[in-house]
Amino acid sequence: MDYNAAFEAAVETVRSEGRYRVFANLKRHNGQFPRATWERPDGTHQDVTVWCSNDYLGMGQNPVVLEAMHKAIDEAGSGSGGTRNISGTTWYHNALEAELADLHQKQAALVFTSGYVANEATLTTLYKILPGLIIFSDALNHASMIAGIRNGGGERHVFRHNDLEHLEALLKAAPVNAPKLIAFESVYSMDGDIADIHGTVALAKKYGALTYIDEVHAVGLYGQRGAGVAERDGIMDQIDIIEGTLGKAFGMMGGYIAGSAAMVDAIRLWASGFIFTTSLPPAVMAGATASVRWLKEHNERRDAHQERAQTLMCRFREAGIPVLPSVSHIVPVLVGHAHHCKMISDMLLNDFSIYVQPINYPTVPKGTERLRFTPSPDHDDKMMDELVSAMDKLWSHCNVARMPAVA
Amino acid sequence: MDYNAAFEAAVETVRSEGRYRVFANLKRHNGQFPRATWERPDGTHQDVTVWCSNDYLGMGQNPVVLEAMHKAIDEAGSGSGGTRNISGTTWYHNALEAELADLHQKQAALVFTSGYVANEATLTTLYKILPGLIIFSDALNHASMIAGIRNGGGERHVFRHNDLEHLEALLKAAPVNAPKLIAFESVYSMDGDIADIHGTVALAKKYGALTYIDEVHAVGLYGQRGAGVAERDGIMDQIDIIEGTLGKAFGMMGGYIAGSAAMVDAIRLWASGFIFTTSLPPAVMAGATASVRWLKEHNERRDAHQERAQTLMCRFREAGIPVLPSVSHIVPVLVGHAHHCKMISDMLLNDFSIYVQPINYPTVPKGTERLRFTPSPDHDDKMMDELVSAMDKLWSHCNVARMPAVA
Repeated sequence: MDYNAAFEAAVETVRSEGRYRVFANLKRHNGQFPRATWERPDGTHQDVTVWCSNDYLGMGQNPVVLEAMHKAIDEAGSGSGGTRNISGTTWYHNALEAELADLHQKQAALVFTSGYVANEATLTTLYKILPGLIIFSDALNHASMIAGIRNGGGERHVFRHNDLEHLEALLKAAPVNAPKLIAFESVYSMDGDIADIHGTVALAKKYGALTYIDEVHAVGLYGQRGAGVAERDGIMDQIDIIEGTLGKAFGMMGGYIAGSAAMVDAIRLWASGFIFTTSLPPAVMAGATASVRWLKEHNERRDAHQERAQTLMCRFREAGIPVLPSVSHIVPVLVGHAHHCKMISDMLLNDFSIYVQPINYPTVPKGTERLRFTPSPDHDDKMMDELVSAMDKLWSHCNVARMPAVA
Repeated sequence: MDYNAAFEAAVETVRSEGRYRVFANLKRHNGQFPRATWERPDGTHQDVTVWCSNDYLGMGQNPVVLEAMHKAIDEAGSGSGGTRNISGTTWYHNALEAELADLHQKQAALVFTSGYVANEATLTTLYKILPGLIIFSDALNHASMIAGIRNGGGERHVFRHNDLEHLEALLKAAPVNAPKLIAFESVYSMDGDIADIHGTVALAKKYGALTYIDEVHAVGLYGQRGAGVAERDGIMDQIDIIEGTLGKAFGMMGGYIAGSAAMVDAIRLWASGFIFTTSLPPAVMAGATASVRWLKEHNERRDAHQERAQTLMCRFREAGIPVLPSVSHIVPVLVGHAHHCKMISDMLLNDFSIYVQPINYPTVPKGTERLRFTPSPDHDDKMMDELVSAMDKLWSHCNVARMPAVA
C-alpha cells in the first residue's frame, strides 16, 4: 500500500476541483486593523486591506482587551496547566462564565476550547443525556453542529433552510412523547440571512421541543448589550441553549453555551470534548471577559457596524455587483464557480491590495461560490471606494454576471 | 417532557457514583509555580501546592514564553480574526508549524485548536482519505483518539494495552491489501507506562500499516531536544504521524500533528475540525514557538524532571504508599474507590494544603481510582517532605491498603 500516493491523490482531488486552499500569510498590526501585511509565497511583502475578517468590530486591537491579556500573563503565566477538572480551572475561567451567563441572562454558562467544540460536544452529549432524543436541524447549519448531531448517532431530521412549515411537518410526524430539540443559527454567515426566532420558539413550545441556537455570528453584534439576535428580538429568555463564540466579534478565541444551571452542569459532567482537553489560558479568558464586558456598554460600535454593512451593500448594488440578499452585516457577492472565484480573489489581492478569501465548497454548495465581505466600523469610505472600484473593473474584465438592472 | 428534570437526573447519576466533579478554583501566580491560591466554595482563600498540573516543566511561567506572548499582543493584537483559510493564518502560525516540523524532523506540521481536536479530526479524516482503512487502537488510548476512530465510522480493532502479540494477531487476521493504521500513545498518562515503540513499528512494517503515535505526555519531556519518547528511543524517523500538544510541557494550549508533506496537506484540506474553526491567537502561537525552541536547548530541565519523579516514587514506596509501577514522570497512587479517592483528595487539600485531583471514572476504569502526582523540577524537597508526611498520615487514618512490604 503506497500511503503517500494516497495522500497525494487526496490533495489532487481537491486541486482538480479548483478548491485547493492556499492560506494567505498575514501579519496583523495592532492598531491598524483592517490593514495588514501579506507575505507572498515568494517571501516579498505587500500591505493590504483585509475584507474578510470575523473580527467584526476590531475588538482584536481594543486596548481594553489587550491590557487584560497582558495583566493576566503577568499575574498567572501562559497556559492553565490542565483540564478544567485537573488543576485547569482558574478565577479567570469562572469570571468569564459568570460574565457570559449575565450576558445571556441565563443561570449558567460553560466555556469550550472553540465554538466548533461547543457545538460538537454539546449536541453529541445531549443524545446521551436525553435517550431517544430527536434533533431537528436546519439544512444550512454549520459543520460543527452537523458533526455533533451525526456523531451523537441518534435520530435526526433536517428541515429546509429557515422553512418553518417544513420544520412543523417534521415535528408533527414525530412521536408526541419523544424528547426533541430544534438546532438552528441566528445569522447564517455565508448568506447573511437571519432565522425567524419567534416562529421557531413558537413551534418548539407547541411540540414540546428544546431550542438550541447558534449565535456565533451575532454575539457582540446584535441586541442592546450584544447578546445576539435573540436579545434584539426580545426572545432570549425563551431559548433553552444559546451557543456563542469568543473568536469573532469578541476578538479572542473559544466557544460557550449558556442556559439553565442543570443543563450546563449535565453537559459539564458528561461531554467528552469538554472534559478531556486542556482549558484555555488565563490570558485568553481575561481578554474575552474584558471584551464581553466592554461591548455590553458600547452599542455605538454595533450601530457603526450595521451602517458600514448597509453602505457597502448599497454601493455594490449601485455598481451592479450581485450582492446576495443579506439582512445582516455579511455582504456576500455571488460568483458561482470555484476557479472564477479564486481568480477574482487573486486579482483583488495582487492588483488592488484587497484581501478577500474565495468561499468554495465544502463551505458553500458548489455553484454558489462567492466572495464574502465583512466590513467593520474601521473600514472607512476611502477603503470602500477602492473596493467598489476594483470590483467594478474586475467584473467588466472577467465578464462575470452582473445584477439584472445593470448587466 | 420535563427536560430540566432529565438534566438533573443526569447530574444525579454522576453524583450517586461519587464522581461529581467540583472544579478547584485556582489562581496561578506567575513565578511561584507550583504554589497557587485556592478559593474555597465559601469564598475564603488558602495557599496550596499544586501536585497535579500538566505544566510539567513550569514553562507556564518561563519568562521567555511570557515575553513572546506580550510581544505578539503588542504587535498583532488578541485573536486571529478568522479560520486558517479565511484571514486567520499569520506569520506566527507558520513559524510554529515550521518549528514543530523541525522538532520532529518531519516535512510538515499542522496546528489544531487542541490535542483533543488534533486526534479527533485527524483520525476521523484518515478514514475518508484512505477508503477501507482499518485502525488498530490500543485499549487505553485517550478519549480523543477513541472519539476520532468512532466518529470516522470505519473498521476498527482494539488490542489489549501494550500487548504486541494481540496486535499482531489482529493485523494478521486483516486483509493483506487493506490500508491499516496502528494508533497508540507513548506515555499513558494515567498509569505512567510507556509503549514499545520499536516493537510496534516492526509490526507496522511487517503488515504494511501506518503508525500514529500520541506523544502529548512526552513532547518537551523526552529525547535530546524534547521531541518525545520516539526521539529518545531513536525511532522518530520511522513513525508516520506524530501527534503532540502545546498545552502540557510546553505550557500553552493547542495540539498538532507532524509527518510527511503530503499527509499534512491532505489533512489540512479534508479535516472538518481543522477547517471550520477560528485559528489560535498570535500570542498563543508565539508563546508556544518560544517554548518549543527553548526546550530544544534545555535538556537539564528534563533531567531535573525525571529526578524529581524518581525521587517521589522512591519516597512513596519507602512509606508504603501503593505507587503504580510507572516508568515515566507520572506518579500514580492507587486508591481503588471513587468516594475514598475524593475524600483523601479533600483532606489533602483542606488539612494539608496539597492539591491533587482525584482521578475517577470515566478517566480511569472503575475500581482503579487513583491520585495522580506530577512532580515538576520546581517541586522541592521540602514540598515532598510535606506531601509524603501527609499521605502517610492519611493512609493510616483512612486505613487505605498499603503496599505489601509495609501493609
